[in-house]
Amino acid sequence: MAAALSSTEAYSLLALSLACFGILSNTFSRADGEPLVASIAFSGLAFASCYALIRWLGGAFMRRGFKGRDLCKLRQTEIPETMGAVCAVVYLFTLIMFIPWPFYKDIVVATSGGGNRDVIKELEEVETGRLLHRFPHNKLASYLSAILSLQCIALLGIGDDLFDIRWRHKLFIPAIAAIPMLIVYFVDFGVTQMVVPIPLRPYLGELFDLGWLYYVYMAMLSMFSTNSINILAGINGIEVAQSLVIAVLIVVNDVLYLSPFTPYPHPATDSHLFSLYLLLPFIGVSLALLKHNWYPARVFVGDTYCYFAGMVFAVDGILGHFSKTLILLLLPQGFNFVYSAPQLFHLVPCPRHRLPHFNARTGLLECSRVEFKRPLARPIAESVKLLHRLRLLDVESDENGQVVSCSNFTIINLWLVWFGPMREDRLALGLLAFQSAFGVLGLLIRHRMALLIFTADNW
Amino acid sequence: MAAALSSTEAYSLLALSLACFGILSNTFSRADGEPLVASIAFSGLAFASCYALIRWLGGAFMRRGFKGRDLCKLRQTEIPETMGAVCAVVYLFTLIMFIPWPFYKDIVVATSGGGNRDVIKELEEVETGRLLHRFPHNKLASYLSAILSLQCIALLGIGDDLFDIRWRHKLFIPAIAAIPMLIVYFVDFGVTQMVVPIPLRPYLGELFDLGWLYYVYMAMLSMFSTNSINILAGINGIEVAQSLVIAVLIVVNDVLYLSPFTPYPHPATDSHLFSLYLLLPFIGVSLALLKHNWYPARVFVGDTYCYFAGMVFAVDGILGHFSKTLILLLLPQGFNFVYSAPQLFHLVPCPRHRLPHFNARTGLLECSRVEFKRPLARPIAESVKLLHRLRLLDVESDENGQVVSCSNFTIINLWLVWFGPMREDRLALGLLAFQSAFGVLGLLIRHRMALLIFTADNW
Repeated sequence: MAAALSSTEAYSLLALSLACFGILSNTFSRADGEPLVASIAFSGLAFASCYALIRWLGGAFMRRGFKGRDLCKLRQTEIPETMGAVCAVVYLFTLIMFIPWPFYKDIVVATSGGGNRDVIKELEEVETGRLLHRFPHNKLASYLSAILSLQCIALLGIGDDLFDIRWRHKLFIPAIAAIPMLIVYFVDFGVTQMVVPIPLRPYLGELFDLGWLYYVYMAMLSMFSTNSINILAGINGIEVAQSLVIAVLIVVNDVLYLSPFTPYPHPATDSHLFSLYLLLPFIGVSLALLKHNWYPARVFVGDTYCYFAGMVFAVDGILGHFSKTLILLLLPQGFNFVYSAPQLFHLVPCPRHRLPHFNARTGLLECSRVEFKRPLARPIAESVKLLHRLRLLDVESDENGQVVSCSNFTIINLWLVWFGPMREDRLALGLLAFQSAFGVLGLLIRHRMALLIFTADNW
Repeated sequence: MAAALSSTEAYSLLALSLACFGILSNTFSRADGEPLVASIAFSGLAFASCYALIRWLGGAFMRRGFKGRDLCKLRQTEIPETMGAVCAVVYLFTLIMFIPWPFYKDIVVATSGGGNRDVIKELEEVETGRLLHRFPHNKLASYLSAILSLQCIALLGIGDDLFDIRWRHKLFIPAIAAIPMLIVYFVDFGVTQMVVPIPLRPYLGELFDLGWLYYVYMAMLSMFSTNSINILAGINGIEVAQSLVIAVLIVVNDVLYLSPFTPYPHPATDSHLFSLYLLLPFIGVSLALLKHNWYPARVFVGDTYCYFAGMVFAVDGILGHFSKTLILLLLPQGFNFVYSAPQLFHLVPCPRHRLPHFNARTGLLECSRVEFKRPLARPIAESVKLLHRLRLLDVESDENGQVVSCSNFTIINLWLVWFGPMREDRLALGLLAFQSAFGVLGLLIRHRMALLIFTADNW
């Protein structure tokens, strides 16, 4: 990877940045500051700076030992690793710089003179209109706690990439990083009640107070969201691209709540604006990273990125109050986790790497296999054979009917079992198409079917 | 350094932790939650965990390349570097876990049942007494922004220790890390007026609005506070111990405002409580680090610690509204900076290291010197000779009166010029005694003299 930007790249990024600065300075001259427009402009700036920084810092990362070899390539040159850390830092600074737009109600007065608080009163008239992009000032603590949790996960993620923390400790990193958000939720908001689905109401009532279990639920959600992304990994671009698909789907869901057709004021408007403000810059930095991480990858993203992306979704879903929708969108990752479980919990032997196997002769990826040196226990062997009949696994048996090998338990290998060997980028595209289709379907069901089990869709 | 704790250490730390947990759980049973008592207990826990973690993680840090040699020792074995990062992470988690105590007014109700918000009303009666330890809930955003800025400096400091950022970029790291705090200050508080000293009032009025210059002032304060601590470094324990002296002096100043003799309610009570809540855990983690970093050092603290300590003071001074007192306490560091300036700005040649020179024969430190290969320019040579006459430098001249060498421009070397060679720990103790005396004097002057130039001491 060249450390310098090509002149085309440099000029494009410069033009994008200038345009974004222009839009930003324009928001000042509008009476309401236009946070949503500003957020889009900030996302553009985040893309540009992340793109350039990844290029400039690659060398420094490699010199400090953040590097790895791409096992699915013919020429396994070393490329920079842990570039997700760059993303995370750019993203966090974007979120911080953005604070004045949604939260400072009298920004126009303040920037013109600084501290002339007496002029504010005149502005109140301006703000009586449809305040779509405005935040109540008391959401500031929520927003700051989100940034805190994301900074924690960035710190801990970098720590993991540095010191290679063990699997069983890794699992809990997101729960630790969720603490700031949970504590501020507890202090500032503290609602732990859930709306109960109609079929369960005779037993639980209309609202069920989860109490401290609600906090456990939120911590579990962070662990699920980060680790499930971390597990669906291993081929170029898949970590970033799957996160982008989820982010875009959530944005679509948010926009549904904010469109001019939705009645206003709507109780969920603020929450979904909040969600957009977190996700748009995330899409910006992720696109910049994907550009370098897509096949053939010139950088790796590191665990930091997976943690960070998962945490963005968890924070977004929790503080935006759509955690159930989030779980729906994470179902493909959830399926991959459940599917992987036999190997993760060592019911079936688990090799060090479960990447697809690179066939140097064809240049294609084939599903990787685990060989059983000792015969499997009877119930496990039978289950494995059952999976084979369900076309959920490729199993090889010897003449005695003894299982000798099977494909590794990941959705990536399963895809190769189904559709045969293919090039790395086609494999990634296939999985992403599957995930997108699944997500769109999920959103449709969520909004069409919600009324069947809840009395009101919070549409 | 042994990676495991000795059994004495392990039992002492365990006893301390249990005592602190006991105190913490006790705060629940008191109606007002006792945040100040909780803060002290948290500081004890922070000490214990930091102490243990430094020991346990030393090996991992060295394996990952965070290590260095102690140049002032006979046997220069390699020891872990960047241990300030451990401090910073423990400190940040302590601050986060502490949030519910000062900010949740009805914590007793909340912890007993979770979400039973209707019970709160009864408690209001309890809270009509002297609410010394309580915070107004709207200070939460300030507190969170302080944590954000400190997390930023930890991230950037670790980045610096990893990638060895250049001097001229390093200088600005604290200003970048101050951004979250400044932005929240702008959004949430926005007061940029200063009380004008009496002699200047005819020209400026009673209050002078600094406007955006106030933000520049705060950013400069962060840069001054961090970098001045970073410059006064190089011998075992000096970075941590000088920070501890400053922290303790600020705590003394805070306690003056909170003592039973001070009229209550006092406008500055909240600010100084805020300051205590930030400083007590800092003292906890710093003591744990000092125990390992004091002569003969078994770990180094790294730039991370200096950045982090300086930023704790800056955040504390700015959000506690006593920035001028802070500057007073940093005067010894400020003097060292001014004194170093001729070498920092290359008016006089500056060697790579300006550490004192270790005399292997005596085992004592002697002042290190810079040799002038080319004769100095006339005005500089004359100034250097003047400093020599003022006993502020040790200059050596040849028979022609040409300056050939002089002691390096740091307060550490100056101390050795004044008092002759001495062992490393006596040197550190001498400097600390000087700093403490200076600080106590400063506080006395600040509270006795303030009325001469301001109409009211904010005592």
